[in-house]
Amino acid sequence: MSFIPGTVLTVLSTPTASHFRTVPVPALHIGLQGIPGDRHYGFTRLAGARERWYKGGTQIRSGRQLTLVAAEDLIAIAARMDLPGIEPGWIGANVVVSGIPQFSLLPWGSRLFFGEGAVLVNEGENAPCRFAGAEIARAYPERAGLDMLFVKAAKESRGIVASVERAGVLAPGPLRLKLPPQKPWTGGTLL
Amino acid sequence: MSFIPGTVLTVLSTPTASHFRTVPVPALHIGLQGIPGDRHYGFTRLAGARERWYKGGTQIRSGRQLTLVAAEDLIAIAARMDLPGIEPGWIGANVVVSGIPQFSLLPWGSRLFFGEGAVLVNEGENAPCRFAGAEIARAYPERAGLDMLFVKAAKESRGIVASVERAGVLAPGPLRLKLPPQKPWTGGTLL
Repeated sequence: MSFIPGTVLTVLSTPTASHFRTVPVPALHIGLQGIPGDRHYGFTRLAGARERWYKGGTQIRSGRQLTLVAAEDLIAIAARMDLPGIEPGWIGANVVVSGIPQFSLLPWGSRLFFGEGAVLVNEGENAPCRFAGAEIARAYPERAGLDMLFVKAAKESRGIVASVERAGVLAPGPLRLKLPPQKPWTGGTLL
Repeated sequence: MSFIPGTVLTVLSTPTASHFRTVPVPALHIGLQGIPGDRHYGFTRLAGARERWYKGGTQIRSGRQLTLVAAEDLIAIAARMDLPGIEPGWIGANVVVSGIPQFSLLPWGSRLFFGEGAVLVNEGENAPCRFAGAEIARAYPERAGLDMLFVKAAKESRGIVASVERAGVLAPGPLRLKLPPQKPWTGGTLL
């Protein structure tokens, strides 16, 4: 099997389930439902604003047990916002990776294999939201409008959400990436 | 939101969990783990030959709660095998659709919305296997080698596997398809 290599720089989890902010931890011991004790643990979750086609509060398949961002993207977003930096925990990241270009555009279904056994499935690009932006704004109270600026500046740079395919340890160290077949689908046009 | 329309022709489930063959039923009442009582029900399953990078029997995220095929593909596969027809139940299909071109190549993460509430997530192309081929061979005992011929003839035509995103009824009738963003990822080459 062929892989693209990358590196995990930091792993983080939510200290309480009451807020999405995360803090760095030495390692994540993930099960098939995600990070035990974390806000996003579970096979299912309630539909929210991102799934506006479902009635709010409908129980749906989770698909976002973990949130991943690229260190390179955090630097680029901060530059676009004219900020000295953005901590991954402010925007609720669980994993900070490095060395994978266009990380937010990774094909759905890509598998991420971590050194100590955990395997994640890419469930797609994470849409930047103003709640994450509001946490950045909290860190820079002298600047107005950072919440909405983040939504714009983080377009296609906000990383991905993922499900766990195999349980295991996820810690800083090497990462290998397995892409699904990238065959173009040209079967139709959205009506 | 924009959709591509299609049609569900038939729905099927396994009468017993001991074999993958399916039989037509009037409707599937699916929960977030799949079809209650069906062989593939569950958030998780054991890794098998298709996931040769996992030790056999490892508990993994399922990703194949339901199997879908296109009626057009069944006709094309049968023609390539010089057979009068292939019943979807022989190869374990749960849903037979029509009107969606290149159905097996649908992008991962595509959502399939069914008329009566159920929503599925495309988890990728279903790899043809000789066990499905063996069921076709059973129906045509006068022909030799149909099991392996199916593997070849069904390439990129075997349909997709899917997870349930929203519970509900799945029955013959209209189907709407929502594609994820199809942005090419050009960030690396497999090593």
